[in-house]
Amino acid sequence: MAYPQTSFPHTTFPSTSTFISRRRAIVHTTTLPHQLNILKSTGRYSAFKLQFHPSYADKPDVWPVPNHLFWDSDVAKWIEGACYFLQREASPLLEGAVRELVAMIRDAQQADGYLNIHFTVVEPGKRFTNLRDLHELYNAGHLIEAALAHRQCYGDEGDGEGLMEPVLKYVDLLCATFGPAPEQKHGYPGHPEIELALLRLYGETRDPKHLTLAEYFIAERGNPTGQDGRHYYDVEAEARGEREHERPVYFPKSRSYWYQQAHEPIVDQQTIEGHSVRAMYLLTAVADLVRIEGPSSARSADRTKALQRLWRNMTEKKMYLTGGIGAQKQWEGFGIDYFLPSGTDEGGCYAETCAAIGVMMLAERLLQLDLNGKYADVMELCFYNAVMTGMASNGKQFTYVNQLASSDSDLSRRAEWFTCACCPPNVTRLLGYIGGYLWSFRTDENEKSVAVDIHMYSSATLSIPVGDSLVEIEQSSNWPWEGKIEFTIRNPTDVATSIKLRIPGWAATWQISPDLANAHADKGYISLPPEWLKTNTKFHLEIPLAARFISPHPYTNQNIVALARGPIVYCIEDFDNAWVDDHFKNLVLDPACRVTESTISTPEVGESYIGLTAHNAASHMVINDQLPPHMRVESNSPTQKPGIEQLHFIPYALRDNRGGKGHMRVGMRRKQ
Amino acid sequence: MAYPQTSFPHTTFPSTSTFISRRRAIVHTTTLPHQLNILKSTGRYSAFKLQFHPSYADKPDVWPVPNHLFWDSDVAKWIEGACYFLQREASPLLEGAVRELVAMIRDAQQADGYLNIHFTVVEPGKRFTNLRDLHELYNAGHLIEAALAHRQCYGDEGDGEGLMEPVLKYVDLLCATFGPAPEQKHGYPGHPEIELALLRLYGETRDPKHLTLAEYFIAERGNPTGQDGRHYYDVEAEARGEREHERPVYFPKSRSYWYQQAHEPIVDQQTIEGHSVRAMYLLTAVADLVRIEGPSSARSADRTKALQRLWRNMTEKKMYLTGGIGAQKQWEGFGIDYFLPSGTDEGGCYAETCAAIGVMMLAERLLQLDLNGKYADVMELCFYNAVMTGMASNGKQFTYVNQLASSDSDLSRRAEWFTCACCPPNVTRLLGYIGGYLWSFRTDENEKSVAVDIHMYSSATLSIPVGDSLVEIEQSSNWPWEGKIEFTIRNPTDVATSIKLRIPGWAATWQISPDLANAHADKGYISLPPEWLKTNTKFHLEIPLAARFISPHPYTNQNIVALARGPIVYCIEDFDNAWVDDHFKNLVLDPACRVTESTISTPEVGESYIGLTAHNAASHMVINDQLPPHMRVESNSPTQKPGIEQLHFIPYALRDNRGGKGHMRVGMRRKQ
Repeated sequence: MAYPQTSFPHTTFPSTSTFISRRRAIVHTTTLPHQLNILKSTGRYSAFKLQFHPSYADKPDVWPVPNHLFWDSDVAKWIEGACYFLQREASPLLEGAVRELVAMIRDAQQADGYLNIHFTVVEPGKRFTNLRDLHELYNAGHLIEAALAHRQCYGDEGDGEGLMEPVLKYVDLLCATFGPAPEQKHGYPGHPEIELALLRLYGETRDPKHLTLAEYFIAERGNPTGQDGRHYYDVEAEARGEREHERPVYFPKSRSYWYQQAHEPIVDQQTIEGHSVRAMYLLTAVADLVRIEGPSSARSADRTKALQRLWRNMTEKKMYLTGGIGAQKQWEGFGIDYFLPSGTDEGGCYAETCAAIGVMMLAERLLQLDLNGKYADVMELCFYNAVMTGMASNGKQFTYVNQLASSDSDLSRRAEWFTCACCPPNVTRLLGYIGGYLWSFRTDENEKSVAVDIHMYSSATLSIPVGDSLVEIEQSSNWPWEGKIEFTIRNPTDVATSIKLRIPGWAATWQISPDLANAHADKGYISLPPEWLKTNTKFHLEIPLAARFISPHPYTNQNIVALARGPIVYCIEDFDNAWVDDHFKNLVLDPACRVTESTISTPEVGESYIGLTAHNAASHMVINDQLPPHMRVESNSPTQKPGIEQLHFIPYALRDNRGGKGHMRVGMRRKQ
Repeated sequence: MAYPQTSFPHTTFPSTSTFISRRRAIVHTTTLPHQLNILKSTGRYSAFKLQFHPSYADKPDVWPVPNHLFWDSDVAKWIEGACYFLQREASPLLEGAVRELVAMIRDAQQADGYLNIHFTVVEPGKRFTNLRDLHELYNAGHLIEAALAHRQCYGDEGDGEGLMEPVLKYVDLLCATFGPAPEQKHGYPGHPEIELALLRLYGETRDPKHLTLAEYFIAERGNPTGQDGRHYYDVEAEARGEREHERPVYFPKSRSYWYQQAHEPIVDQQTIEGHSVRAMYLLTAVADLVRIEGPSSARSADRTKALQRLWRNMTEKKMYLTGGIGAQKQWEGFGIDYFLPSGTDEGGCYAETCAAIGVMMLAERLLQLDLNGKYADVMELCFYNAVMTGMASNGKQFTYVNQLASSDSDLSRRAEWFTCACCPPNVTRLLGYIGGYLWSFRTDENEKSVAVDIHMYSSATLSIPVGDSLVEIEQSSNWPWEGKIEFTIRNPTDVATSIKLRIPGWAATWQISPDLANAHADKGYISLPPEWLKTNTKFHLEIPLAARFISPHPYTNQNIVALARGPIVYCIEDFDNAWVDDHFKNLVLDPACRVTESTISTPEVGESYIGLTAHNAASHMVINDQLPPHMRVESNSPTQKPGIEQLHFIPYALRDNRGGKGHMRVGMRRKQ
């Protein structure tokens, strides 16, 4: 199974409550209906009726992108997320809405297959004239993903009912419009998304033109001479009558095409640049393409090198402790190497929720190409921190930006919705298919064998049909709070099952029981062979979880330490440390201190979690603000006020659920 | 005497060589002729002949500013600098060039008084249509300053020979063009300069319209409703047919008028923002205006508050250890509070030479309003570090940007000249009148008294006529290398002379001899009363100079230490520390080490200086670059390689005079 979106139905979550199943339940019972209400109240729900909405006349917040330009994708992502949940459990409310939305989308399709709200209602003559800025193909990509989820949930519906039929017709139009032929446009989307959607579609349809168009968009991207001997975006801008120095808000300079990862072909890019969500969606598609075309071709080899190079650049030099990416607000993306300030008052910290979801997508695809724990480590880090911090425990509030430290101008707060509302439904759909991230598997019907790679731990059961047989692998744990995972294998005697179990990179020790001779982790995974599994149908893995101090690379100039435990990164909030009045900016922490843990249950957090307390570890720096710039080191060195006996930490993902002033910090100044 | 430009002729430098007199001699003998050759070879010298130069057709490096737009000011600043030196010593070469240039400028004047190269030759119909970007009034300001220097040097020449006559005619046109009357333009220059020039002109002419226009430019600046109920720059841009999102390269967003300090009236500005040279020139004029109008008026009180607020914000939160200002390359100016990276690879370090010259100008004006050593400390810091680093010891090479650490993309190097060549002639003219910065004085002819404030030390003599008498104050020292300054006062018995001697803020101790009872520094100055000076016509001040470690504010996240001695800030270069291959990025320094000093004479440096050596103080950090972002603090903490026995330091101002690879750093990572 190539995608978590298609493999997740093999995973069931038990009624016993875990972090993941609780979050899924919230999304099903609360978030989806809540977001449906917002779609309705904001005008999105009925936008495919193609009536002019008053907000269409609003001046764009981010010129030249109309505020409503993403409405197609907001609806599509909600449908996609709803279908993942509907596939497991009925809900008349959600089902009715999906049915009505699909009908509206079908009716909105133009005679030639075109399907887009803005370019039908507001600027009907301007289709495909601004691929660089206007998200037309991005919206198309999300319609494809919605159609795939819808068909997976409802199967091939009759004529006039499904979403796949109009989407395929739209894709036909796109395949005719874009490509290398002289009469075709040699363009590609400013915001990648359709590439990964077309590749997933190709996986279902096996229609070669779906693969061809995806490959074209990826290979053509950044071609300096693609259209009439010039960069496509230059030619397109000139045709629109745009002037050389007329710049989108997110372009620091003219022709900042690195924003869209279109400054040069992807295989030539040496560092990861620009808008972080776009980068992740693009690289996810590139990894898919390598898998589909096979890793041995010359162009796959170049693409694989680019993927590894850009992954390393990102994770080693441009990723926050939480797994968040993107420091720069202006272009919602990457700064220079090691530019990772903690918050607005230090120069920015963006770490968009969607970008972290994109890292998970990319990591999962890379695991398919190369089973290496380093990808799974980052995937899990993102999930439990940079992504899960994006939703409140009540399922009704979300973040777009996930800074590591608050400031007076940017408190630690979530919001109900955003003008550009990409993140909330992205969390929704992710939790819909999260089961597909826990593990991946391959079956061989001839050999009657199953190979399962287990990437993330929770309580869940994986059911794999092999011919007439069914292999079931059950894991049971209170992960991420407890490190003991119990496994039960229900394996028909005629099937040879092998398992690879991930040992996280942060794990200092681990133990498997019953004992497995010569057990060792190879690139982060232990191999459990069929023979051992036959005799050990019940076993457990124990990974001791203990608080540890973590810190970013010294080149970041962030002389900070943070607390982590297992995959969870912690923060401090004013709720537990009420004396704070400076966002903990002057707090100094000694990583040699004693840290204790305790299980904390408060209804607001929605999760019984392990809280941490650092004892006699923290003090306050007192700085003389009025010193001139060239004073001696002694006078410019801070003194420390008497320490704080107890400093209380809460998982970063669970921040801002209990009220308070909005003061929060992940990394504290390290005691010298 | 209100200006160092007018008071400097009272100062003579002895033939004994000091840092300042050597630099002045280089400028006189080498720099001025050298820059004259460059003016000629680049086309600037004959540009006032109003012929079209091929380079006028070049595409601007910084849109929308034509590369040649500053040529008027390059010529004017050279004339100004040459005149300061010619006032002290004849030079047929320089005199001939000044005469020819003045004749060309006179001939270039249009019938109505207009006087500008670009808007006469290239865009004759577009005068005063883009005050925001096109430096028209900036150039006018430099012509005024050149005319003042020229008249001071040559006196009122006959008809048809001087520079003041055409300049006054041009100023008449400006006074008619700009102002509050309905038919006048309610605009003000994008780059301040004419304000301070008009105020200096007013000091000579006492023509009220010169004061009025300067006051208008300052008070009107940033008015949100100044022209037809809108911001002047908006109305002006619209009239040019500029589109809303057509942005100059230096505007990160549309309407980034903070770049020009025109986002709000100066009295409302809470923090110092934007282009650092513009900010300094503007505030210098504001301080002048307060002095001229008297500090007690309501508007002077508001302006004084703004000056103090912005000075504090700058020196406490936005100034480098060297006195440099401006971290951001895009707008050549200030970042957010405490954003002070050392070099390009950390996010930028601009510290333009002209900006530091501007800090000196502002500091000198503020000293006139309030004799406080904190202004003089920064003035001297800037001079010996951020400004003097701008010129090579050979007088032929200059810097524009003065980073505190080199990197592979920005080596520590000077250049002969720049397309926008503001800095080289700015250093030239500063050294022409530097005598005026050493001290300031006030005479009272009725009381027959003289009051002298001594701000900077060197070897020099100040001659002050009081009626028919002449007071002479001679200081003799090898400052900044030695801390003993000997004073000789030649004071006629009928004149009461009082002196205030500055004690630098960094001085740990000091001693005056013969002993002065109850001597103490009040706001950084010791008072020497007339009675004491009568009996102590020879005395000396001793300020022990010893190496000390300095560091920036902890909020800068620059966990670094640097070495200073007296007013001199040091750096390390690969020339003395040849093993370096990483720009000293991984060097760790222990400020508890032993530092020794030695006098070093090498012909290339042009200056016998005190070099410093840190013993067994430095080691190399070894970092594992391949760690994921969430590793434990121990694995992410650097280890240290065996130390370096001797680390050699050279004054930052004297860097890059001896060849080498261009690796340099001021602040080293501080040992934890």
